[in-house]
Amino acid sequence: MNYTYQYPHPAVTTDIVIFSVRDNKLQVLLIKRGQEPFKGSWALPGGFVRIDESVDECAKRELQEEAGLEDVYLEQLYTFGAIDRDPRERVISVAYYTLTPSAHLTPAAGTDADEVQWFSVENLPELAFDHTEVLRVARDRLAAKMEYSTIGLQFMAEEFTLSQLQTVYEQATGKTLDKRNFRKWILSLDLIAETGKRFAAGAHRPAMLYRIKEPDRVEIIR
Amino acid sequence: MNYTYQYPHPAVTTDIVIFSVRDNKLQVLLIKRGQEPFKGSWALPGGFVRIDESVDECAKRELQEEAGLEDVYLEQLYTFGAIDRDPRERVISVAYYTLTPSAHLTPAAGTDADEVQWFSVENLPELAFDHTEVLRVARDRLAAKMEYSTIGLQFMAEEFTLSQLQTVYEQATGKTLDKRNFRKWILSLDLIAETGKRFAAGAHRPAMLYRIKEPDRVEIIR
Repeated sequence: MNYTYQYPHPAVTTDIVIFSVRDNKLQVLLIKRGQEPFKGSWALPGGFVRIDESVDECAKRELQEEAGLEDVYLEQLYTFGAIDRDPRERVISVAYYTLTPSAHLTPAAGTDADEVQWFSVENLPELAFDHTEVLRVARDRLAAKMEYSTIGLQFMAEEFTLSQLQTVYEQATGKTLDKRNFRKWILSLDLIAETGKRFAAGAHRPAMLYRIKEPDRVEIIR
Repeated sequence: MNYTYQYPHPAVTTDIVIFSVRDNKLQVLLIKRGQEPFKGSWALPGGFVRIDESVDECAKRELQEEAGLEDVYLEQLYTFGAIDRDPRERVISVAYYTLTPSAHLTPAAGTDADEVQWFSVENLPELAFDHTEVLRVARDRLAAKMEYSTIGLQFMAEEFTLSQLQTVYEQATGKTLDKRNFRKWILSLDLIAETGKRFAAGAHRPAMLYRIKEPDRVEIIR
């Protein structure tokens, strides 16, 4: 079936940057493309917006289909609209990014992806399309938003230590933080609470486990 | 001429929220639509992305054609992708916003617009499409960004008093600010400098005029 218009129309896709802090590193989920263009290259998960779904719904569907992820924090990042970013036709991509606790993540390759793999953002392969640029914008947004919002908590599992939380902040902002100042600051925000339990990892003095008071809330802080 | 595709394609537009602080009020520039749909309704300036221009270029072109504005701060806001936001066909809109010094502004109606008019954001007419929602998102972004960046300076003319700057901050954030604290804070950022001249408005003690040290720079502050 063909669809005809009186003037040329672009195609619209969504691409999704999936961040997680794994093995004490900021990592991103990439798929190896199973078809042309860029067959065999690593790329961000994503795909074409269907005519009967909103752009947001497309992003959620792709996240589910290509990475097996649901119910994670998902935010629109930026729309990439250069004229030559896809060799097939004019394609405008609405990029999203998501932050996921590493515990949530057992992604399996979906229908369109040959392989799914985590990469440290410090050690990325060459990416298809303009995805290196998309990822750069996503990292900048994440680093900035860590400073002025509570977004960082979206990386955390249900229970976590302050050291784990500090690692997440350090990895996502690229800054080394002073342990005492970080603890004082994060506790002053009144966003996390002690669980009463301690982290049993054979340490001499096991660390307190914390939980997020309002897990789904991301807000601006000063 | 007709353009044929194997699957349905959306159309893509840009819409632009043009903010300025005029008569001590946050105002937005609207155009009265000269054609259907919503003929005769007020709407944000904007139009279809041409196949041979980037989305950013389209926003700049529309800003020039519909509002006569060039060389102003322009930032991508959000992409609105609901399926039913235009009665003609599936249209996805990439919204931008701009902050302009009131001195820059002598917009004239362009080719597509019957009339161009400033409206206080507190006293808006009913808008075409989902433009009320677009404007709400733009106001939220502006208010948030005033707090954590130097974007507010983009509203200022070449020379301004601290009172004028305070009015801009109050209007854009919706908050009443303490005069002494505001002055202390804004001067501590080291972004503005005294011109040595004073504001001649017949006041008993004319206020110092300031200028922006680096006019084109918008950065994150803490």
